[in-house]
Amino acid sequence: MSASRFLRACRRQPVDRTPVWFMRQAGRALPEYRRIRGEGSILESIRNPDTAAEITMQPVRRYGVDAAILFSDIVVPLAAIGFGVDITPGRGPVIERPFRSEADLARLRPLDAEADVPYVVETVQKLVGELGELGVPLIGFAGAPFTLASYLIEGGPTRDFVLTKALMHSDPGLWDRLLDALATLSLGFLSAQVAAGAAAVQLFDSWAGALAPADYRDRVLPHSRRVLEGMAGADVPRIHFGVGTAQLLELMASAGADVVGVDWRVPLGEARRRVGPERAVQGNLDPAACLAGWPVAERLTRRVLEEAGTEPGHVFNLGHGVLPETDPAVLERVVELVHTETAR
Amino acid sequence: MSASRFLRACRRQPVDRTPVWFMRQAGRALPEYRRIRGEGSILESIRNPDTAAEITMQPVRRYGVDAAILFSDIVVPLAAIGFGVDITPGRGPVIERPFRSEADLARLRPLDAEADVPYVVETVQKLVGELGELGVPLIGFAGAPFTLASYLIEGGPTRDFVLTKALMHSDPGLWDRLLDALATLSLGFLSAQVAAGAAAVQLFDSWAGALAPADYRDRVLPHSRRVLEGMAGADVPRIHFGVGTAQLLELMASAGADVVGVDWRVPLGEARRRVGPERAVQGNLDPAACLAGWPVAERLTRRVLEEAGTEPGHVFNLGHGVLPETDPAVLERVVELVHTETAR
Repeated sequence: MSASRFLRACRRQPVDRTPVWFMRQAGRALPEYRRIRGEGSILESIRNPDTAAEITMQPVRRYGVDAAILFSDIVVPLAAIGFGVDITPGRGPVIERPFRSEADLARLRPLDAEADVPYVVETVQKLVGELGELGVPLIGFAGAPFTLASYLIEGGPTRDFVLTKALMHSDPGLWDRLLDALATLSLGFLSAQVAAGAAAVQLFDSWAGALAPADYRDRVLPHSRRVLEGMAGADVPRIHFGVGTAQLLELMASAGADVVGVDWRVPLGEARRRVGPERAVQGNLDPAACLAGWPVAERLTRRVLEEAGTEPGHVFNLGHGVLPETDPAVLERVVELVHTETAR
Repeated sequence: MSASRFLRACRRQPVDRTPVWFMRQAGRALPEYRRIRGEGSILESIRNPDTAAEITMQPVRRYGVDAAILFSDIVVPLAAIGFGVDITPGRGPVIERPFRSEADLARLRPLDAEADVPYVVETVQKLVGELGELGVPLIGFAGAPFTLASYLIEGGPTRDFVLTKALMHSDPGLWDRLLDALATLSLGFLSAQVAAGAAAVQLFDSWAGALAPADYRDRVLPHSRRVLEGMAGADVPRIHFGVGTAQLLELMASAGADVVGVDWRVPLGEARRRVGPERAVQGNLDPAACLAGWPVAERLTRRVLEEAGTEPGHVFNLGHGVLPETDPAVLERVVELVHTETAR
């Protein structure tokens, strides 16, 4: 498995071809996913190891990607410790009783993986065998403290982060205790996935791009760093990703990840310069390009490869998750194109 | 009027105090606005010069801001030439028949201000007298070609700009003809407002931040430049603003504006360096800060002033529009604080 081109690229070692995977590759774009998922809550599918393992495998078979990512969700550990979360189709995570005050800290506790998320452990174990035969590593993941906090505080997805920023600025003590509890939770969730056999981890701080650099640096970065540095001993590559982080790239890169994921807003050549030679980069085809017909997807895929250059340390990915309306055939061709164009 | 601190700051001349105004200062945060607006479409209020002038004046009286901005909307000229647009409460502009193909170009034509938007001309004329007595300049505005195009193509607000990007990449010829028509429309709309007495103009490319720098440079910037350079002869300051433009700042600054507006994601010190000494900056208090209690709003207002420094060429504003739930008393105190702190 250490010969995996995905793991090698994460470690900035030379590869035979640039590895490719897609955020949300397991999901609604695939007809085989829609068939198996049915109508229930996505959390139910995640709690069923047979279903979750099958959904994780689907894009590996279909696309020939170089890594699998566990079918799960960043709110899974929150739901597992009983915070009261569901995922509403078309809306996203909804929190039953949002985080409002000091008293709500008592509703957060570290994860006891065996007791709280046995189904995740079982899914990872199932997958590791099946993927191992294919030589494809499994990526585990968790939400970063800020992004998790934004859901807990807002009660669901938000555009303006009004309540989140109000708490961050008006009660930094409580804010830090909340993010500290979430860092512990995420660390426990990542550790459990690695202990069960995940070969890499990604920490999603999807919404960090809503912040000014000074606030990110003072109120968010230390907590993300605790998660990423807490995983240092696990000896698996750590990827750190957020959307719209053009103003934060150096800071995010300093959080301790081996690989920094960027969306399409920052060309990869610039991203490489800004994150420095000690880190690999991941990205960054605009998911919208995959809905603009093959000639466009092809041209923009080539542009990503040109911007990334030929130095080791590039994992090809989209700049954000696969859009549900994407034609799987386009993603298949993207994988093929990246592999062909980068054959060394 | 040329002694106005707002106009002087736009021209990077020394001022007695840093001028302040707020994007969307005329709007839902004000109880007097909600009273006068009633339940009808916002376009109806815009079409009534008495109502539109009164709404424009409300924040000037309430907040003591240093500039008024015409109560209008970026889709007004589109509606006026009969493209079929309405503004749905809680959703935003909705296009009856979205732009789909070459044939739809025929539905766009230059603005004949006297015939198409006589109510805008009349509103501006009314305001110029009333504001002139107070020494407060009126800002006219228009949507930039890209942001207008995104509404026309998507049919309404969008998160992913899938159809917009598909057209931009798959049919650059049609894309350029569309943006050219929209540039002509915006130029006509701005010219009409200036001819009627507006003392400055702002070109809103609110959603340009969705783009990669190369696409912005090749497919968007030339059209915005045509609008801004087309206004050069009018001898009024030109402001250019977009949200989440950390990756585009130098390019946006090169479009020809005198003032570059930035949101809270880029500290103003950095913004000044990046837009260069030939341009003023406008911004950039996070609107969310105004909903976090006065101590937070105060601290973050002071931070904006520190980041802006004392060199001439700063217009204080929010980093995006006033949020509807904002307490007007907070905005009043922000104006007071900026004026007190920057008294020279």
